[in-house]
Amino acid sequence: MTKRTVLFGVLLIAGIGASSRAEVIRARTSIQIPDIPGYVTLKCDFHTHTVFSDGAVWPSVRAEEAWREGLDAIAITDHIEYQPHKNDLPTNHSRSFEIAKEPGDALGMIVIRGSEVTRKMPPGHINAIFLQSNPPLDTPDWRDALRIAADQGAFIFWNHPGWTGQQPDGLARWYPEHTELFDKHLIHGIEVVNDQSYYPEVHRWALEKNLTMMGNSDVHDPIGMVFDTDHQERRALTLVFAKEKSLDAIKEALVAHRTAVLFEDMLIGRQEYLEPIFKASIKVVNPSVTVKGKGLALVQITNTSDVDYQMVGNNRFDEITGSSRLTLYGGKTVLMQIRGNSETTTGKKSFELKYTVKNLKLTPEDSLQVTIPVEVNFVPTK
Amino acid sequence: MTKRTVLFGVLLIAGIGASSRAEVIRARTSIQIPDIPGYVTLKCDFHTHTVFSDGAVWPSVRAEEAWREGLDAIAITDHIEYQPHKNDLPTNHSRSFEIAKEPGDALGMIVIRGSEVTRKMPPGHINAIFLQSNPPLDTPDWRDALRIAADQGAFIFWNHPGWTGQQPDGLARWYPEHTELFDKHLIHGIEVVNDQSYYPEVHRWALEKNLTMMGNSDVHDPIGMVFDTDHQERRALTLVFAKEKSLDAIKEALVAHRTAVLFEDMLIGRQEYLEPIFKASIKVVNPSVTVKGKGLALVQITNTSDVDYQMVGNNRFDEITGSSRLTLYGGKTVLMQIRGNSETTTGKKSFELKYTVKNLKLTPEDSLQVTIPVEVNFVPTK
Amino acid sequence: MTKRTVLFGVLLIAGIGASSRAEVIRARTSIQIPDIPGYVTLKCDFHTHTVFSDGAVWPSVRAEEAWREGLDAIAITDHIEYQPHKNDLPTNHSRSFEIAKEPGDALGMIVIRGSEVTRKMPPGHINAIFLQSNPPLDTPDWRDALRIAADQGAFIFWNHPGWTGQQPDGLARWYPEHTELFDKHLIHGIEVVNDQSYYPEVHRWALEKNLTMMGNSDVHDPIGMVFDTDHQERRALTLVFAKEKSLDAIKEALVAHRTAVLFEDMLIGRQEYLEPIFKASIKVVNPSVTVKGKGLALVQITNTSDVDYQMVGNNRFDEITGSSRLTLYGGKTVLMQIRGNSETTTGKKSFELKYTVKNLKLTPEDSLQVTIPVEVNFVPTK
Amino acid sequence: MTKRTVLFGVLLIAGIGASSRAEVIRARTSIQIPDIPGYVTLKCDFHTHTVFSDGAVWPSVRAEEAWREGLDAIAITDHIEYQPHKNDLPTNHSRSFEIAKEPGDALGMIVIRGSEVTRKMPPGHINAIFLQSNPPLDTPDWRDALRIAADQGAFIFWNHPGWTGQQPDGLARWYPEHTELFDKHLIHGIEVVNDQSYYPEVHRWALEKNLTMMGNSDVHDPIGMVFDTDHQERRALTLVFAKEKSLDAIKEALVAHRTAVLFEDMLIGRQEYLEPIFKASIKVVNPSVTVKGKGLALVQITNTSDVDYQMVGNNRFDEITGSSRLTLYGGKTVLMQIRGNSETTTGKKSFELKYTVKNLKLTPEDSLQVTIPVEVNFVPTK
Repeated sequence: MTKRTVLFGVLLIAGIGASSRAEVIRARTSIQIPDIPGYVTLKCDFHTHTVFSDGAVWPSVRAEEAWREGLDAIAITDHIEYQPHKNDLPTNHSRSFEIAKEPGDALGMIVIRGSEVTRKMPPGHINAIFLQSNPPLDTPDWRDALRIAADQGAFIFWNHPGWTGQQPDGLARWYPEHTELFDKHLIHGIEVVNDQSYYPEVHRWALEKNLTMMGNSDVHDPIGMVFDTDHQERRALTLVFAKEKSLDAIKEALVAHRTAVLFEDMLIGRQEYLEPIFKASIKVVNPSVTVKGKGLALVQITNTSDVDYQMVGNNRFDEITGSSRLTLYGGKTVLMQIRGNSETTTGKKSFELKYTVKNLKLTPEDSLQVTIPVEVNFVPTK
Repeated sequence: MTKRTVLFGVLLIAGIGASSRAEVIRARTSIQIPDIPGYVTLKCDFHTHTVFSDGAVWPSVRAEEAWREGLDAIAITDHIEYQPHKNDLPTNHSRSFEIAKEPGDALGMIVIRGSEVTRKMPPGHINAIFLQSNPPLDTPDWRDALRIAADQGAFIFWNHPGWTGQQPDGLARWYPEHTELFDKHLIHGIEVVNDQSYYPEVHRWALEKNLTMMGNSDVHDPIGMVFDTDHQERRALTLVFAKEKSLDAIKEALVAHRTAVLFEDMLIGRQEYLEPIFKASIKVVNPSVTVKGKGLALVQITNTSDVDYQMVGNNRFDEITGSSRLTLYGGKTVLMQIRGNSETTTGKKSFELKYTVKNLKLTPEDSLQVTIPVEVNFVPTK
Repeated sequence: MTKRTVLFGVLLIAGIGASSRAEVIRARTSIQIPDIPGYVTLKCDFHTHTVFSDGAVWPSVRAEEAWREGLDAIAITDHIEYQPHKNDLPTNHSRSFEIAKEPGDALGMIVIRGSEVTRKMPPGHINAIFLQSNPPLDTPDWRDALRIAADQGAFIFWNHPGWTGQQPDGLARWYPEHTELFDKHLIHGIEVVNDQSYYPEVHRWALEKNLTMMGNSDVHDPIGMVFDTDHQERRALTLVFAKEKSLDAIKEALVAHRTAVLFEDMLIGRQEYLEPIFKASIKVVNPSVTVKGKGLALVQITNTSDVDYQMVGNNRFDEITGSSRLTLYGGKTVLMQIRGNSETTTGKKSFELKYTVKNLKLTPEDSLQVTIPVEVNFVPTK
Repeated sequence: MTKRTVLFGVLLIAGIGASSRAEVIRARTSIQIPDIPGYVTLKCDFHTHTVFSDGAVWPSVRAEEAWREGLDAIAITDHIEYQPHKNDLPTNHSRSFEIAKEPGDALGMIVIRGSEVTRKMPPGHINAIFLQSNPPLDTPDWRDALRIAADQGAFIFWNHPGWTGQQPDGLARWYPEHTELFDKHLIHGIEVVNDQSYYPEVHRWALEKNLTMMGNSDVHDPIGMVFDTDHQERRALTLVFAKEKSLDAIKEALVAHRTAVLFEDMLIGRQEYLEPIFKASIKVVNPSVTVKGKGLALVQITNTSDVDYQMVGNNRFDEITGSSRLTLYGGKTVLMQIRGNSETTTGKKSFELKYTVKNLKLTPEDSLQVTIPVEVNFVPTK
């Protein structure tokens, strides 16, 4: 008999709290990526599977594991055409969303109705989310399926364009069919990251064509079999910069292309989003320091986000040399070094140390440039 | 599309090894509990659920997660009578075993066909494993169901007798119906541990009535949502002392009551099993030491098992005093202290330090007694 | 040649940041215990040793390891009378403070000059901190030593009154000598916790006599050999509720008895400090929930502190039953359950769930009482 | 008063075992690198510092932290010429070894007397170990110092030839002075790895000139401030293939060049040592598998060492394709995949899968080649 599970109908109060260990596991760990001016930063996964297509979990698991992992919203996107369990579990395209939504509501997790239109390349696999009804997408012609989704008001995006199952060399290719979809406004976003793959060519397309950048897990197994979620290892996520935490606000933000991608130790997105995230994450504890001759001063920098910022810069000025490499570890305070270059400098002077944050990617080649201001009070060696 | 999963039909070689992180997760960690003379020590979980009753995972997950966790055998024991998913997933009592067996075979994991006969108390919930066919157990009278199971050659055991869902005070009660089953040889074993509960009264019954002691997970969720399996936290297990690793040998051992229970930091079982496990786990690195006057010597003891042995004993002799408390951590070498009691002792002498290993439980009250032999060479303080 | 160490004279910029791993270790992890109204909550250890008495580290290590661990202030309190290294390292009572202060200043760590007057019981070992000069305490009569310390303006406290090295049974005893010291205002505080020992009788004395409660590490080894500081295991600490982060403000707070003790999973202190810490730590995410008949609602509670609050309470009301046990894990959000007791309740009603927070100890026997307010909107089962 | 420390004179039995947590930390974790035919594989660090030069710990710490970390031997190699603590701690070149040796003996840790001759480049810093007496090395001319060491029977090796403190570009350079030392047999080994730096050019010199390859920590701080030793992060080590575990056998092996280097995830050494280590680490659980048509078989491979073997190979045969990438995680069992290439193959056939183990480095460019034998029983798809 189900004894521990909050979210499957019966739940016994007597069973809760009996073991502290189990409770620790039924806990939510927030993902620390700050909000940016004007928007809340929602952590979303728009591509997940359940036993209702080829996934390995009952849909309710998707809601609870996302809650534990600190997400704000997930889409359930079972395959329309690929139904390997159908002899045991008769095809019902609506049910995985319906089942997941109940525990989602209980937990404050936004669950979004979606489907994955699953065709050979081109056009490959395409997700439609914010659907009104899933079954109409089960139709022979993929053009019809996507048109029906669009008519329901869906947000539509191209999944894993470089998936080796369809592109054995791992390279994404843009076919005439994708031009057709793009021109007909039947494709609004694209997965720059799917699961554990980042597609640089897709990153470029997203920038050139102004497609909404997506990063999703495409999870089939229990998430804990793929990532060590108990120890802050995380699935790929789409960060959505929304006017509020709501279903409608997420859709509005996706349509307006206000997203970035969190993938392993990287943030991928436009400067207008990554720069304010960086700035809101960082606090210089002691921005004014004293340097004595060729001595050293330590500037403490706290990073309240979960992202380690990997900074590189050549910071040699006439009067000082600053750390050329510096990782601002997430949730930690680290030391930036300022060394005097002369025994005789005196007075106060301000400096802007320039760094490239290598893992904040604006394009496949370029990373965010930032500055750290420091004021130095020079004291000569007596 | 399923991209990572070895065990669900399609598996793409190209996808394997691309990410070292994912591979680490698809790895098996052995459970270090040594074999004992004459038998291999198999790590088994005879009580698990899937989506085919009220569990949350597709049956194949049970085989892979058990393989990763270091188990040798599992039984799939979906409820016969409790079928909350049946409107979506029509009842088919045979399928969860059949589906789990395929990946089990590929992984060398023994998967056992079972069912949970799920009735109100008495007699409560009863597992039958090593079945030939599950559907015949779906019959109105539980006496019939168990008789049918017995006729198929099943091994039958009573689940979680003190479960708060049926005994709100958490106390197991032995009803006339259980006497009836016992007298008719329709109950062969009993869960001394189920999930995160240990039932001391059941432990006593098992000893008195010579019922096979079982410890099982009764897992419904993905195991990684209940235990931190990536970091050596483990489900409750039945240790089976079998003549070999095979389906038949496990059954033979269960019938012959050759089991013990591994539960959190405890081993529960008869002295004839726990004592050889302890002895096979421990190695004294330097059994002969020199003590100078009232000085100290350090005896290094290595424990190659995964069980931390929590030892307590009053080891004051005329010539020496030994550590009164000592935890032999699993997989580590620790220091036992021997201090001289006199400045003038000389010569060599052997001692047997006596300890109670508190977490090796023979009965609810009694733990295993062990001795550690040490030879001391006494050197007087000059 | 010293290559990695920031704090021992030479530091080479080229060597910093070359390996990301080493940097992660030279990072500070804040201890999350919130400030309370009117005061900042400083994390302090007023009892540490170095090679200048019987410790095992050069004094600079004490400053850096405290910085990494998230402390605000430490006292260096080497023994006056116990100088086992003196044949190699000639006695110099002032030097350990002086050496530790330099890296402390560079890191913003307040380092306090102290000494441990180390005598047989009574009066045992007594720390004097905020000294002006250490050598004058090296005098035969302990009464003289403490008088000299007091004349320097020191804050004086009795260390580990139940230490088994002086009280083999582990019980603290109050001798006439302590009454003498107390009456002469030569003892201002007392260690309720030293290292890994909590002394309940000392806790009572502190309350009765209004002595400042202290909890200190008394560390001799590198702190990482005693605690797994890389993974949030921590030394015992004195929490000081100070008007600001400064040497003087700490002393003012100690004199005014504004402290509490953080020890393993416990906070020990007066209600006036523990209650505002609890309140400032907790946020109810959804304080208003809907319960349908005998159904369940989940209230999410976030604990932003690092302390796990272990809550127990009998929360059965006419209309609802709330979780009777609940651990609010530090840094996590957990679920409190509210179950309806009737199918027919309607309307809105507010409840105050009452809990004892077992690990927030006001006295050896009593823990903090708290309430969690919840508003329930009842919807009858249709 | 020292309360917890085993190894500094006083030790109180009463204090041991009182807290299980502290004991866990005073435990030894073995390093799993197997012995090779004819030799035991000893884990050694021949370069460490203490407060007696510019290190930060009392010498006894070096013995205990090495014991915990699983080492067999360490050398204490304080600087002769660099004595920054001398105003507090008068220079005494012999004492750090003498102090460390006592706890080393109690723990079975071999402690070796050494000194670091510390000069500007050339010749840079040079360690002499297995000395009879340290003070004679304190002489103005480095040629004299090394000659004196050699005359004492010391083993002499060049430290960190590419250290940025002496070679700002991080490149090791061989000077005429090194030729002179080499020709006079005053240099026997060389650090291919020092601390966190691997010097590829030094690796080549060691091979060309048959210098003993060394990998050492050069630790100054407490080891736990540099590596997360509680969680299997380790210092660089010299693996010594010795005839037995003894001081003399280590020296004999060093003179005979029988070493390899363990550094982060790499093993660096000659094929004659790395190949038997790999072979002794690996066990194929099921070397004979059945493949059905184009189906898949899983070969389980257990790696009992602590080194993750990172294997890459193109294993496409006519009949099968094997995993092209495979990491054999230390202490784990992983899956190698064998996929059939044809629906019609029948019969049994043996294959040798070829892999390069990328992190077992024979030269800066070349890694160890290994084969994994598999027997496949082909069953056609019916």
